[in-house]
Amino acid sequence: MRIPILKLQNYLLISIQVELDDKTAIQFQEDLLNQIYKSGAKGVVIDLTSVDIIDSFIAKVLGDVVTMSDLMGAKVVLTGIQPAVAMTLIELGIHMQDVQTALNLEQGLIKLRQELEG
Amino acid sequence: MRIPILKLQNYLLISIQVELDDKTAIQFQEDLLNQIYKSGAKGVVIDLTSVDIIDSFIAKVLGDVVTMSDLMGAKVVLTGIQPAVAMTLIELGIHMQDVQTALNLEQGLIKLRQELEG
Repeated sequence: MRIPILKLQNYLLISIQVELDDKTAIQFQEDLLNQIYKSGAKGVVIDLTSVDIIDSFIAKVLGDVVTMSDLMGAKVVLTGIQPAVAMTLIELGIHMQDVQTALNLEQGLIKLRQELEG
Repeated sequence: MRIPILKLQNYLLISIQVELDDKTAIQFQEDLLNQIYKSGAKGVVIDLTSVDIIDSFIAKVLGDVVTMSDLMGAKVVLTGIQPAVAMTLIELGIHMQDVQTALNLEQGLIKLRQELEG
């Protein structure tokens, strides 16, 4: 299955509401990068509110997605990171220092707008 | 699988990017009504851009979702209806007369805002 990517103005919105298995995560990475390319999106909000836990592979894919999107010119904001997910990311040394985060989709979008528009 | 429902301010956004089978459609109906109840959303945009074709059951479920959401106080805008989908809806006599439509998610959101805020 594929994770839907919604386009809203210059932004792409993704809310991950399924358990991410390896195949879905890789497919998501590919779909998102293609969508950034096709749409010329300047920003991406990935909402992880519904993600309770992640393993090392998924954490790496997520970290990579952020770096890759950045390379393609789209700023990523991660939102709704739960405690267990935050712990996994840090424990695995996934470099999220430069990544913007926010409480929820709404706040993420506001953050992107502030950064890109003003 | 479940179709993700994104909450943005007072609105719920849904982009259907999978082929809707009967079970998924019913699950979506239930999830959406629950989300309207929980979030107190005033408007819903359902984007059908990626839906090429629908059968009579799915068409009925979609028609019902619109009426049910309306009953619960949330206005629905359908966006990205493709020709074949429009034909199926009309041929089956699904009553969409009162339903707002728009070209895409963005336009749908603008339409909802105009209707509910101004």
